[in-house]
Amino acid sequence: MKIALDAMGSDARPAPDVEGAVMAAREFGLTIILVGDENKIKAELAKHNTTGLDLPIVHTPTEIEMTEHVDAVKSKKDASLNVAVKLVKQNQADAFVTMGNSGAAMAAALLGLGRIKGIERPAFAAVIPSGDAHVLLLDIGANAEVKPEYLYQFALMGSIYANKVMGVANPRIALLSNGEEEGKGTLVVRDAFALIKQSKLNFIGNAEGRHILRAFADVIVSDGFAGNVMVKTMEGTAETLIEFIKTEIKKRPLAVLGALLAKPAFDALKHRLDYAEIGGAPVLGVDGVTIIGHGRSNAKAVKNAIRVAKRAVEGNMLEAIRNGLQ
Amino acid sequence: MKIALDAMGSDARPAPDVEGAVMAAREFGLTIILVGDENKIKAELAKHNTTGLDLPIVHTPTEIEMTEHVDAVKSKKDASLNVAVKLVKQNQADAFVTMGNSGAAMAAALLGLGRIKGIERPAFAAVIPSGDAHVLLLDIGANAEVKPEYLYQFALMGSIYANKVMGVANPRIALLSNGEEEGKGTLVVRDAFALIKQSKLNFIGNAEGRHILRAFADVIVSDGFAGNVMVKTMEGTAETLIEFIKTEIKKRPLAVLGALLAKPAFDALKHRLDYAEIGGAPVLGVDGVTIIGHGRSNAKAVKNAIRVAKRAVEGNMLEAIRNGLQ
Repeated sequence: MKIALDAMGSDARPAPDVEGAVMAAREFGLTIILVGDENKIKAELAKHNTTGLDLPIVHTPTEIEMTEHVDAVKSKKDASLNVAVKLVKQNQADAFVTMGNSGAAMAAALLGLGRIKGIERPAFAAVIPSGDAHVLLLDIGANAEVKPEYLYQFALMGSIYANKVMGVANPRIALLSNGEEEGKGTLVVRDAFALIKQSKLNFIGNAEGRHILRAFADVIVSDGFAGNVMVKTMEGTAETLIEFIKTEIKKRPLAVLGALLAKPAFDALKHRLDYAEIGGAPVLGVDGVTIIGHGRSNAKAVKNAIRVAKRAVEGNMLEAIRNGLQ
Repeated sequence: MKIALDAMGSDARPAPDVEGAVMAAREFGLTIILVGDENKIKAELAKHNTTGLDLPIVHTPTEIEMTEHVDAVKSKKDASLNVAVKLVKQNQADAFVTMGNSGAAMAAALLGLGRIKGIERPAFAAVIPSGDAHVLLLDIGANAEVKPEYLYQFALMGSIYANKVMGVANPRIALLSNGEEEGKGTLVVRDAFALIKQSKLNFIGNAEGRHILRAFADVIVSDGFAGNVMVKTMEGTAETLIEFIKTEIKKRPLAVLGALLAKPAFDALKHRLDYAEIGGAPVLGVDGVTIIGHGRSNAKAVKNAIRVAKRAVEGNMLEAIRNGLQ
């Protein structure tokens, strides 16, 4: 299996990207095609033992910055993102992975790979640690406005992803709304409720914001507006609370001692919330495996994003979505 | 000033409701009309020193349960909620306060008091501790679907509430969206952005979910769907994280000792997140001061909800909204 990695993706590029690729090539026995500035990539590769690993480089003269407008995807045809996507399109790679600008990555995937036939709108997902498991939340921003049919297709693709990639046997699907009871929500949400309910999916009804970390469902389906609000509110709340506790502890000498003693408990929390364990989340509905990680990814996160891509390829995710539409 | 308190509101009714009323009557020198089961209210009053306080009782034979459908507002005309609203309608009280079923309370206020002339849709707000201040988030569930004009009116009412009741000099107004940049969001949000921008309000642009606890704005305006998702995601995330830390600490003897030493730091967090300090949030746009608190309110929360009502009356909030519409 060959994975095309945009080596110029992460905030600290290409160091974590290249190190993660080295780790993934060794651990999973994959070919990782490193797409980006050849000199910079070679300098990073020289820092690691790459004996016996297959890490070809495809040089690109430019890249798309984290803050650049999505239009850069069209104007910078030879940017690392676009070239990595092209490798998938031309069947020179089985999947595309990047830690870069997620708006640009989605656009590059959609423009370069197209939609799976029958899919109305691709969706961008987040994988969130929830209870002892994970929940797949989609869409988190690709589609601010949706139709009931789009939400149904998000449910279908989310169910397939949870099954094929996350390893959930019979994924429980919930629909994000402003109340648990059937009949809550906008007209679009209520119509989507009816559509999903009459499908073969394992639909468990509406989810609310409070369910996000409760392992309430395996997949939560939303329009990209409320889904974006949900995931950012969760991240913001967690970060703010942890900062606040740290600040309050630092004010008090005895509390500092206490925090040292309690450190293993906090480390457990940190581990649970550690994005690097998850690695990346998919763009579902484009005609090629596309996995996007956080800009602030470290090497472990890059490695795990590559693992996610590997599972999607091994699980024939694209084929399963095509079949699911029939 | 006279406040009509639904004494049968809180989960532990009427004990915290009555005790909170006693505290408020003494601290603020108000008349609190206790609406509910006379015998139960008298039994609670007997537990407190009420010498010199004005705490008349209006007996009602029935009440609306926390889990009852909102239709109960129409079928139970003599429920404590409806009777308390009626006292405001008939100018026998200056404000209506309840810890009860918030859907029913909103419906009772809307049916019993009507809308302020010119207001398209009333909105239900939440007051959230944010940084060293508070943020007013509205709507959090009264209107799953909105028009740009509704969002503009929410911004206007929120600005007036933040000024008159929360004491903010020139409230900063933000619009909830799926990105900070102008142009992000649904068509409705983008049109609302233009409307609010050209108004005299102190508009600072779009807010994202991650801003909720960051004192980014004094007022965040949203439709009732995304606003509901936001407030519930925040509450759910905070509760889950705190539970998780507690569970992990309990697993480790040294961490238990550490947690004891760090307790003052956690108490500071608890204080900051303590709903009882806030008391209640308004239904804005109905033609009467209406304050709704959490079902799980204690006496302090009830007292503070009454204080919120007092400030709204003293600040001539309703008059300010009427004037703001001109």
